[in-house]
Amino acid sequence: MHERLERTAHAIAASGADWAILTDPGSVAYASGHVVPIEAGPSVFAGGPTTAIVGRDGTCAVVAANVEGAAAEAGFAEVTELYEGVAFETEVDPIANYRDRLEDVCRRLGVGGTVAVEQPSFPRLAAEILQGCAFVPIERELARVRAVKTVGEIAGLRKAGHVAALGQKAFMRARHAGRTELDVFAEIRAAMENAAGTRVPLTGDFISGVTRTAAFTGWPVARTIGPGDPVISDLSPRVDGIWGDSCASAMVGGASPAFRNLFDAARSALMLAGEIIRPGLAFNELDRRLRDVVAKSGHAYPHHSGHSIGFSVPEWPRIVPRETAVIAEGMVLMVEPGAYDPEIGGVRTEWMFEVTANGCRVLTDFEHAHDLPG
Amino acid sequence: MHERLERTAHAIAASGADWAILTDPGSVAYASGHVVPIEAGPSVFAGGPTTAIVGRDGTCAVVAANVEGAAAEAGFAEVTELYEGVAFETEVDPIANYRDRLEDVCRRLGVGGTVAVEQPSFPRLAAEILQGCAFVPIERELARVRAVKTVGEIAGLRKAGHVAALGQKAFMRARHAGRTELDVFAEIRAAMENAAGTRVPLTGDFISGVTRTAAFTGWPVARTIGPGDPVISDLSPRVDGIWGDSCASAMVGGASPAFRNLFDAARSALMLAGEIIRPGLAFNELDRRLRDVVAKSGHAYPHHSGHSIGFSVPEWPRIVPRETAVIAEGMVLMVEPGAYDPEIGGVRTEWMFEVTANGCRVLTDFEHAHDLPG
Repeated sequence: MHERLERTAHAIAASGADWAILTDPGSVAYASGHVVPIEAGPSVFAGGPTTAIVGRDGTCAVVAANVEGAAAEAGFAEVTELYEGVAFETEVDPIANYRDRLEDVCRRLGVGGTVAVEQPSFPRLAAEILQGCAFVPIERELARVRAVKTVGEIAGLRKAGHVAALGQKAFMRARHAGRTELDVFAEIRAAMENAAGTRVPLTGDFISGVTRTAAFTGWPVARTIGPGDPVISDLSPRVDGIWGDSCASAMVGGASPAFRNLFDAARSALMLAGEIIRPGLAFNELDRRLRDVVAKSGHAYPHHSGHSIGFSVPEWPRIVPRETAVIAEGMVLMVEPGAYDPEIGGVRTEWMFEVTANGCRVLTDFEHAHDLPG
Repeated sequence: MHERLERTAHAIAASGADWAILTDPGSVAYASGHVVPIEAGPSVFAGGPTTAIVGRDGTCAVVAANVEGAAAEAGFAEVTELYEGVAFETEVDPIANYRDRLEDVCRRLGVGGTVAVEQPSFPRLAAEILQGCAFVPIERELARVRAVKTVGEIAGLRKAGHVAALGQKAFMRARHAGRTELDVFAEIRAAMENAAGTRVPLTGDFISGVTRTAAFTGWPVARTIGPGDPVISDLSPRVDGIWGDSCASAMVGGASPAFRNLFDAARSALMLAGEIIRPGLAFNELDRRLRDVVAKSGHAYPHHSGHSIGFSVPEWPRIVPRETAVIAEGMVLMVEPGAYDPEIGGVRTEWMFEVTANGCRVLTDFEHAHDLPG
């Protein structure tokens, strides 16, 4: 049985359920390998969310619209049922087709008893065909099994992180005064997509100038980058269903002493993370120690210190002041301390760390991140 | 009352309902002006779909996660309730927060009786807080009121179409041999996003070479475009919640006679559309006449002849052989005939037409589309 499917089965059991109906794209990809395209929103050719039906014994079936045939081919579910979501001759009824196919699959597999569901996306439509079943939430238990990564996920995270790092290399090349944020962002995206060989869903931040970087988050706009502008490039591409992430910061034309001071504060915290991350350390303790380093330089950051990552971004646990979960071997953590000043702008530096038996290793850094780019 | 909200209220009444709970991003944007970010998939910081609660009397409220504050500001719902989906100090429970806020809003507004819902995305979670309500589908009636556009939508479609046309201008500049599809696509995207002033969700096709263009659909890959390659650029960006669309075709380095023959077949059908689209013409009749023109040149296309467009893409009705709906004033139609040959490649040309009282007008074409680009 695929290791991720086995972990999903554990989460079903831990939820007190016999079956799970998974409807979040991240969970579906985790449990079945079927990576739903997400970049253009929910497909008008789908009658319901792409759905994975998973048994406590590791049975796995996927129900998806015919437009997702390519995604289905890449998955490892034993059963994949594609219903007619679109036809070119006539209108079809994707809702009826989704419901009928889901009902048929559930009947064949014998889905019944207690069914664990993902509440934000589990449709009433699916509940109706499971009359007599009891429903329980699976979010908490699924987050727990997903927090420790499989060997395959680590490889996927390294690849997605590498794609993000190639994006940062493109950022270092492209960050010239006179170009818009969107132009530079397009060049970064092209570098990442060429590396991935396909379009990649992309989130993160891309902001320039004192005001925008001091506000620490935002998507790129048509603002022209000027000489001496601070720029924050936080890139999170999804590659084969797994998210990469990394953040780089720079000042166009070279860093001022004040900007270097911000950078050194954030970088010191990032370097400390590499020294102290190990199994047994609590997330809130890691958070506190990173904030302390930045505070010693007279700075602070108004966001989390980092987060877990995998088939969703972010994943639980996050590195926040009140998270009492404890770091375990096999977790993969994004660490992203920053330093912000309304008069100078902002800096954030972020790497991906894999937790090992005794410490951690950097899965992905990015060029020049060991020191401030010139 | 906002005209789109008024039409939504009509759809609720036509569905036999007292209220609607809208959960599709396109419908939510249509009824409330709240444009949900979609490019990175469902937010992990949301406890349910961003939801519009609409009354038959035009009452409108939106429940969204706090991360969608900016989207909420741009909307026109009388009530917008942002629940805590994320906090930086600690984990929160977005699911409980979504449910509680939705329940509170429904109680304050007096939601009850028969409730119209969008079945693919209406969560069981929301059904649970509406105990005692009867649920009916709204898809059919909502599609019908949305088919005829408001003045504001026409303006939005013109703008989104213009952004797509600027993408095609960039395509004409950027389509050089030696670059990858993804590189050219990034340049196209940058042109569109600079015009829109922000990131835009983007769907469509970008394919090069004989085999890929003959297969008529696909997203860009790292394939290097070669001299003499046919290229199809079908661009559908979402601008302010409204989708643009247009398709251009070219052969790198200039068209061969065989390619020109394909182009002329598709172009003839597109020009005919501009002559014959008028209120009263049935969609299947329009489809037949466009296919006939292409067939006279000895070619054919294995896809629809076009489709309606608005807050979703495509929308009902589509221009397909068995669609008996009739064209009405105020509809906006994408017309996209093509011609494909496994030895030559493919061509598709697409414009946006607004249906007027007596005919139609082109809302958006693209540079060089009147003739084959050199």
